Amino acid sequence: MKINLTACDLNQTGLEMYDLISELYPICRSITGNGVRETLKILQRHIPLDIREVPTGMPVFDWTVPKEWNVRDAYVKNAKGEKVIDFKKSNLHLLNYSTPIHEKIPLAQLKEHLFTLSDRPDWIPYRTSYYSENWGFCLTHRQLEALEDGEYEVYIDSSLEDGYLTYGEYFLKGETSDEILLSCHICHPSLCNDNLSGISLITFLAKHLSTLSLRYSYRFLFIPGTIGSITWLSLNEENAFQIKHGLVAAGVGDSGNLTYKKSRRGDAEIDRTVAHILKHSTRPYAIAEFSPYGYDERQFCSPGFNLPVGSLTRTPFNCYPEYHTSADNLDFVRPTALAESLDTYLAILEVLESNKKYVNTNPKCEPQLGKRGLYGAFGGKKARKRKRWRCYGFSIYRTATIAYSILPSDRNWNFL
Amino acid sequence: MKINLTACDLNQTGLEMYDLISELYPICRSITGNGVRETLKILQRHIPLDIREVPTGMPVFDWTVPKEWNVRDAYVKNAKGEKVIDFKKSNLHLLNYSTPIHEKIPLAQLKEHLFTLSDRPDWIPYRTSYYSENWGFCLTHRQLEALEDGEYEVYIDSSLEDGYLTYGEYFLKGETSDEILLSCHICHPSLCNDNLSGISLITFLAKHLSTLSLRYSYRFLFIPGTIGSITWLSLNEENAFQIKHGLVAAGVGDSGNLTYKKSRRGDAEIDRTVAHILKHSTRPYAIAEFSPYGYDERQFCSPGFNLPVGSLTRTPFNCYPEYHTSADNLDFVRPTALAESLDTYLAILEVLESNKKYVNTNPKCEPQLGKRGLYGAFGGKKARKRKRWRCYGFSIYRTATIAYSILPSDRNWNFL
Amino acid sequence: MKINLTACDLNQTGLEMYDLISELYPICRSITGNGVRETLKILQRHIPLDIREVPTGMPVFDWTVPKEWNVRDAYVKNAKGEKVIDFKKSNLHLLNYSTPIHEKIPLAQLKEHLFTLSDRPDWIPYRTSYYSENWGFCLTHRQLEALEDGEYEVYIDSSLEDGYLTYGEYFLKGETSDEILLSCHICHPSLCNDNLSGISLITFLAKHLSTLSLRYSYRFLFIPGTIGSITWLSLNEENAFQIKHGLVAAGVGDSGNLTYKKSRRGDAEIDRTVAHILKHSTRPYAIAEFSPYGYDERQFCSPGFNLPVGSLTRTPFNCYPEYHTSADNLDFVRPTALAESLDTYLAILEVLESNKKYVNTNPKCEPQLGKRGLYGAFGGKKARKRKRWRCYGFSIYRTATIAYSILPSDRNWNFL
Repeated sequence: MKINLTACDLNQTGLEMYDLISELYPICRSITGNGVRETLKILQRHIPLDIREVPTGMPVFDWTVPKEWNVRDAYVKNAKGEKVIDFKKSNLHLLNYSTPIHEKIPLAQLKEHLFTLSDRPDWIPYRTSYYSENWGFCLTHRQLEALEDGEYEVYIDSSLEDGYLTYGEYFLKGETSDEILLSCHICHPSLCNDNLSGISLITFLAKHLSTLSLRYSYRFLFIPGTIGSITWLSLNEENAFQIKHGLVAAGVGDSGNLTYKKSRRGDAEIDRTVAHILKHSTRPYAIAEFSPYGYDERQFCSPGFNLPVGSLTRTPFNCYPEYHTSADNLDFVRPTALAESLDTYLAILEVLESNKKYVNTNPKCEPQLGKRGLYGAFGGKKARKRKRWRCYGFSIYRTATIAYSILPSDRNWNFL
Repeated sequence: MKINLTACDLNQTGLEMYDLISELYPICRSITGNGVRETLKILQRHIPLDIREVPTGMPVFDWTVPKEWNVRDAYVKNAKGEKVIDFKKSNLHLLNYSTPIHEKIPLAQLKEHLFTLSDRPDWIPYRTSYYSENWGFCLTHRQLEALEDGEYEVYIDSSLEDGYLTYGEYFLKGETSDEILLSCHICHPSLCNDNLSGISLITFLAKHLSTLSLRYSYRFLFIPGTIGSITWLSLNEENAFQIKHGLVAAGVGDSGNLTYKKSRRGDAEIDRTVAHILKHSTRPYAIAEFSPYGYDERQFCSPGFNLPVGSLTRTPFNCYPEYHTSADNLDFVRPTALAESLDTYLAILEVLESNKKYVNTNPKCEPQLGKRGLYGAFGGKKARKRKRWRCYGFSIYRTATIAYSILPSDRNWNFL
Repeated sequence: MKINLTACDLNQTGLEMYDLISELYPICRSITGNGVRETLKILQRHIPLDIREVPTGMPVFDWTVPKEWNVRDAYVKNAKGEKVIDFKKSNLHLLNYSTPIHEKIPLAQLKEHLFTLSDRPDWIPYRTSYYSENWGFCLTHRQLEALEDGEYEVYIDSSLEDGYLTYGEYFLKGETSDEILLSCHICHPSLCNDNLSGISLITFLAKHLSTLSLRYSYRFLFIPGTIGSITWLSLNEENAFQIKHGLVAAGVGDSGNLTYKKSRRGDAEIDRTVAHILKHSTRPYAIAEFSPYGYDERQFCSPGFNLPVGSLTRTPFNCYPEYHTSADNLDFVRPTALAESLDTYLAILEVLESNKKYVNTNPKCEPQLGKRGLYGAFGGKKARKRKRWRCYGFSIYRTATIAYSILPSDRNWNFL
């Protein structure tokens, strides 16, 4: 079956993916709180997302659902009353999960709570303090250097209280109860590639798949990183084993090469399928072994679950300087890159959907192509190779799924 | 045991192999008909071949034994009555399996039935139409260009009628009922490398082996390509599993490098043995994986049989420009190449014949070579290495066949 | 646990290892006899070695314990009564295991019993005749060329009589009864690298390990080559299977690269461990597959035992011109090379000692590093990587030994 979009639709979809990123960009997200709720509500305009809430304090494996964090305003004023750091200008300025404070302190004391990137003096870093209560501000190094001695008014109007961890889930029922998982994280504030690109890709993927009749059921997760997947796995321990294949989407909007990080199994059907699609694409790509750093594939692949879930990104996390800084902005992601990433995800799903098991009903000697109209009228020269290949290709197997039956000569099965 | 010919005999045999090719060259063969019968009768002068006939219409797996084709004469005459294409000059001129015709037709209509090679203007292509009734002529591109407008008399005195498919079989009984299969195709008309070289090699191989006392039984098949092996397998379905190793011979007379195409199993004893012999030869060679294109190994290896049968050729089919053209003639095959191919086949058979299973009766610590006379009188320096190697080599295995026991350092076991 | 010596101690130990070699150098050793006893007694000053004696004639697998050989003096005098070959100058001059003789013979007859190296005219070769009774002398080629015609007095005051095969064994009890075997040969006379370097390394290894509290028990063997290991295995057939890992030490004092020859199993823990240590060293090295030539690993790995015993040398035996000649002398081995070899052995043992099996008690999702103090206070940037790696690294396995748990990205586990 054909899942891929046409080139024309793909260009259009790339622009729409970018528009969604632009809309979500200003929101201050974290692993909990109203920023996540607001984000998910915007996504509900595209897909029928269920928004789920899990209460603070609930144990989830080795972890506990944290307190909910919300922030209304935050700034630092100098002695003249000028805002020298202003959360309203960029939500990255506030250390994520900062506790409330309203005090006047001297510069030296303030500096213990400031984070900059000395080697990128115009960029604001992104920092968090989820599991250790603290407060702080992130700013450009030039801002830091411009701060004069004197007293500063520090104001953070935030709350860190019992509440909920919020996540989105969309289950698209297919012919069978076997599931394909597509997951992204939704916990980063104004960061485009690391967060919003994945959200946008999964949203448009879900939107497109919901228009098709599919063999697999699809489960789309929009969850805070780490704690979100741990929470979901804890709540769905019994059913997680319905997941036959999965991909974690993140960093799919930059202009770098596509990079696939294998599942912990390393030879799962998803691993072979992605490798195949990348190999037969016309662009450079990279394939990496599983490792315990990365996104939520770490949880899905933990040995107690060991699900066949890989991660398909463009430039891997932490391998581009803009990663976790204000430079991961709306200029850093491109509609064409988003569209190409989406197209690759669709190509992968098309293989998985098509990859049924066929049984050779004629295993003794080859089939006669002539009487099936698959052979050129005149022998002795090369004949209709593509169709012959399909027929011959399968004829050398007793049973075969398409992805498995890639022949020794490693031709691209896609032309079958 | 020693199977290989001496260098002297090999030169002589190369010349005899070439002479047999020269004798068979003029005959118009096809997948059925008197050309095959005539060919097999000539081979009977060398080996006691059984000639078998299978009637038209007999179902053989997915196929049916075709009608028998015979041709007495064929030509095209121009308006002046000159023969511009003459089957008697080269049987390649006639589209193989052409139906009878005697008509006068204009050039334009004639051209629909003509085949040439525009990029090789002096060569006649070889074309067939076995399974779609038609008529036609093959000619050089220069001949085609010289044809003037006007009417042409087309004459094909052929018959396509119920009859027989004819093939040759020679069974050479050995000590055991385990069989080695050696097969070639006999369906091509005046083509030397693709057809006659294989026929000649299998004939002289059989002739030489018949003079020896052998462990294996040998089955030599001279069959029309594809339909012949399908027919043989259909008639011998029960007994095919006696075949423990097999080789399909074709294209063994050109001056290209030896090329082995593995069985579908890929790791059968025949695959390892041929790889070993080629590796320890002094000449370049190639080894290819199984694929569903090629010669009759396609049928022997079809998944319902999956016999351990590979194919040893020189330049692979379709990889030399002369393939399936009039340039695959008596100049294209060389006695020395034929002899070298034969020698390689013999070397392979020598390994298979010798490759018995040995059990190490002394598995704890190494055997004392001294008391067996296998150690040099004086220690401290290299001693009789060849014999020691044999003894040591085996001593590190509990059980071993020779071909399996090739040691990690991959020495050539032939010196054992 | 830490086993390795400090750099300072290592330099000192290198010098002591060299001193021991110097002390043992003059002794005339063979596979039996007083030279072996004297050698072992010197070693007893360093480690509490048990000296064991096995009587001549005892059957040991395919072999028999040979007669004991001792030599007091040997020379060849020319017609003028000058000693032209003198055992007292170098014990290599005497063919090892020479039977007694006292005769006057002409030069031509003498020459049948002389061994030289024509391509190394200043070196004395080392030759033996253990299992074929004979007598002979080894000399430099220049000595041979200087011999004038005439009668020569040949005198060998040796005895070859029923006696004992002598070997040394030191068993160091650890926490468990699982054993690590460390073995060297002690049968060569004045040869430094091939014999004395291994003896010295195993002695100092044992000396150092005896000061530590260890998980494994250690068995140190000082045995004549081939017949010694065969004898030991024959006497200890039942208990040999306590050996969980082993190394045969030889040729560890030259300045060549470290070379590991794998056990016959090829993938034993010792094989993986040595490969790992060599890979993460800063020096070039080589790893070779098992083969039936070499030192006593041949017997330990024979298929009836198949123990996980490899051999770690520097330049492999027979791969340096000085091998088995008088040039393998005190100049050929270096204290720094000895120390580096010892250090590598210790590094290997440190891994084996540490390589316990751990069970992941938290297999579902990753452990929370924060509450264990293993995560940096501020997220969003790289945190304490070494400790995190340890924790994450293990978290992706259900059970793991350290050497097995080397992660796909193949980081050096040593920093754990």
